[in-house]
Amino acid sequence: MAFLNENYLKLQAGYLFPEIARRVREFCEKNPEAAKRLIRCGIGDVTEPLPGAAVEAMKRAVDELGKRETFRGYGPEQGYEFLRSAIAQKDFRGRKIDVADDEIFLSDGSKCDCGYVLDILGGQNKIAITDPVYPVYVDTNVMAGHTGPAKADGSYEGIVYLACTAENNFVPQPPKEHVDLVYLCFPNNPTGAVASRPQLEEWVKYAREHEALLLFDAAYEAYISQPDIPHSIFEIPGARECAIELRSFSKTGGFTGVRCGFTVMPKTLLARTEGGRKLPLHPLWHRRWSTKANSVSYPVQRGAEALYSPEGRKQVRALIDHYMGNAKILREGATRAGLQVYGGTNAPYIWVKTPDGVTSWQMFDRMLNDLNVVITPGSGFGAQGEGYFRISAFNSRENAEEVARRLGKL
Amino acid sequence: MAFLNENYLKLQAGYLFPEIARRVREFCEKNPEAAKRLIRCGIGDVTEPLPGAAVEAMKRAVDELGKRETFRGYGPEQGYEFLRSAIAQKDFRGRKIDVADDEIFLSDGSKCDCGYVLDILGGQNKIAITDPVYPVYVDTNVMAGHTGPAKADGSYEGIVYLACTAENNFVPQPPKEHVDLVYLCFPNNPTGAVASRPQLEEWVKYAREHEALLLFDAAYEAYISQPDIPHSIFEIPGARECAIELRSFSKTGGFTGVRCGFTVMPKTLLARTEGGRKLPLHPLWHRRWSTKANSVSYPVQRGAEALYSPEGRKQVRALIDHYMGNAKILREGATRAGLQVYGGTNAPYIWVKTPDGVTSWQMFDRMLNDLNVVITPGSGFGAQGEGYFRISAFNSRENAEEVARRLGKL
Repeated sequence: MAFLNENYLKLQAGYLFPEIARRVREFCEKNPEAAKRLIRCGIGDVTEPLPGAAVEAMKRAVDELGKRETFRGYGPEQGYEFLRSAIAQKDFRGRKIDVADDEIFLSDGSKCDCGYVLDILGGQNKIAITDPVYPVYVDTNVMAGHTGPAKADGSYEGIVYLACTAENNFVPQPPKEHVDLVYLCFPNNPTGAVASRPQLEEWVKYAREHEALLLFDAAYEAYISQPDIPHSIFEIPGARECAIELRSFSKTGGFTGVRCGFTVMPKTLLARTEGGRKLPLHPLWHRRWSTKANSVSYPVQRGAEALYSPEGRKQVRALIDHYMGNAKILREGATRAGLQVYGGTNAPYIWVKTPDGVTSWQMFDRMLNDLNVVITPGSGFGAQGEGYFRISAFNSRENAEEVARRLGKL
Repeated sequence: MAFLNENYLKLQAGYLFPEIARRVREFCEKNPEAAKRLIRCGIGDVTEPLPGAAVEAMKRAVDELGKRETFRGYGPEQGYEFLRSAIAQKDFRGRKIDVADDEIFLSDGSKCDCGYVLDILGGQNKIAITDPVYPVYVDTNVMAGHTGPAKADGSYEGIVYLACTAENNFVPQPPKEHVDLVYLCFPNNPTGAVASRPQLEEWVKYAREHEALLLFDAAYEAYISQPDIPHSIFEIPGARECAIELRSFSKTGGFTGVRCGFTVMPKTLLARTEGGRKLPLHPLWHRRWSTKANSVSYPVQRGAEALYSPEGRKQVRALIDHYMGNAKILREGATRAGLQVYGGTNAPYIWVKTPDGVTSWQMFDRMLNDLNVVITPGSGFGAQGEGYFRISAFNSRENAEEVARRLGKL
């Protein structure tokens, strides 16, 4: 009989968001009246319509495919030049960050890239992951066999956890020990924290000294409001030798259902064989895409390209301003309710301390039952998230205001 | 320094199609005049426009995303119910094949699924692959570390190759030895061969006896013209206990650039742990999608759904008839040129013996230089493909006729 991948059996119960969905469904079935006033601030999913520029570009592209003269079949496996070039130019070189067009690899989203990137890395790497954290970083490593079994608190043997706490303002120091691979996400999901330039410099210094690789998730970079906070790890000198960056159109263009993201894989980034040969990762990543995929849907690539047009940029800016307006309202509402509040200034997430020893899931149930508001329990993001919950600012203004009001009843 | 996945270093030079692209590019640069009359019958990429039903559905879906009331963000990670249900009903249950809606998992294409499916399988499996074969089956296994190094003939240690030759009409018998995992593709890419019901019954019998898993790639099932040839492995009793099926909209709806395919993962299919526990693969596959992806672009899913409407089905039928008309013309042209021809009756590929000991790549260069026609060298599909080449019927009628004419000059 065929063998299965036993690493999957180490995974903890349902992935966080399906578990939330299950509890909400159950609540709604039992409380049809309350269900009508339910407001979802759980999963970080956008609510506002796609920018008009993307809508028009996607429809034009679909029309192209509907005519023989302009039909296109398989595109380049790494993505069309028009989009790779727009990204490299507008997100990086236009901001004085050295990134070449062919260092951009398109994908169907950052979540997917988190898994894909492990394809080209060895199983021997010592991995460091922040805690709390986007669960996908951990679970993809469990699936790939890079961890031991789960411990009682839900953490996995073999992973070095970097605690993000109120004490370190949710930005961890590099560890004392050696690790090969570090996951960093700034602006952070779930805490909303950002890393300052000196903090990122310290991480790059660590990575250069330990020849470690930083997987830098910048999916929320567009939400940074403070001018001195870096948007890309590649703003830090030396990062081209030690980092891969992940980005997404999900939270800029509202592409969570449209699906498009990308990685920046510098050609100057090396990794090693067991025997000590040092080789660039770029050709392996290129080969991964050639062999395993046919890139992103053509109309989607045109939609993403349109986000870089002058009109598209304005529309994206308006979307982000809308969500950050919500973040401000939610921050203030939670603060007025007497809660200890973090994040929400450079990120669309508010990270809130639960009152007096209430657990994260207890808080989830209380918010659901008493306020009819869905939040995300902090413990779902890791052991250090226990005693916190996340409120997402992805909502209508009306809902954000209503949630702020309801928080007052806590 | 981070370790890389050394299995990538075992891979043979460029993946086949990029290598073809390279040679064609070089030829065109050196021969700008001849380049103008170049006809591409190499990569199996569709040429005709998307069915109108899909175009309209995709544009409607994009418009939905452009309005707040109808906007959708993240969809279910395994695909929307509307499409999973249409597929299960129309491709399977409507044809008396027992497949449940939640046994359908949407993806961004069959090529991608080939790699994804290895995620949930163990590294200990003994793998059998036909030769010649779609290179992705082999390369994804090399990348996952399921093989030894490459041998001089390009084959890999550790894989059981099942020779598909003129003698067995390109349909191999089950091996004498035990294997855990078998890749089968019918109608076959590249040979165009189909497996009869008794032949598939023999494979299911083997799989049941050996508790092996069949990965059945049915991406070309819609091209079957003989009424007695099975379209799905699940037409064979017992297959629900031993098979996974891969399907695609690439060659039916012309979705090569739109990207959508699916797997059928029966809930009755078991695999084992090292310790001998037998567990269903379905929950692992479900978890893989929950954790690692957010399914296919919403407008694409609506486009695929439209292929099942009465209008969509007619349009798909017309596309397939068009390509199979080309196949007939190419078959006849090659036969008239005195070549030994296979395939092209139930598949859009013609598999042709090279004349008098000419190698596949020599034939590629000769066709390119003398006829200005791009074909695929058989040896690119495996050692047993040496001495053959593949002509793709994906083209305009005019080009198919012109290629048939040019073949006369060989």
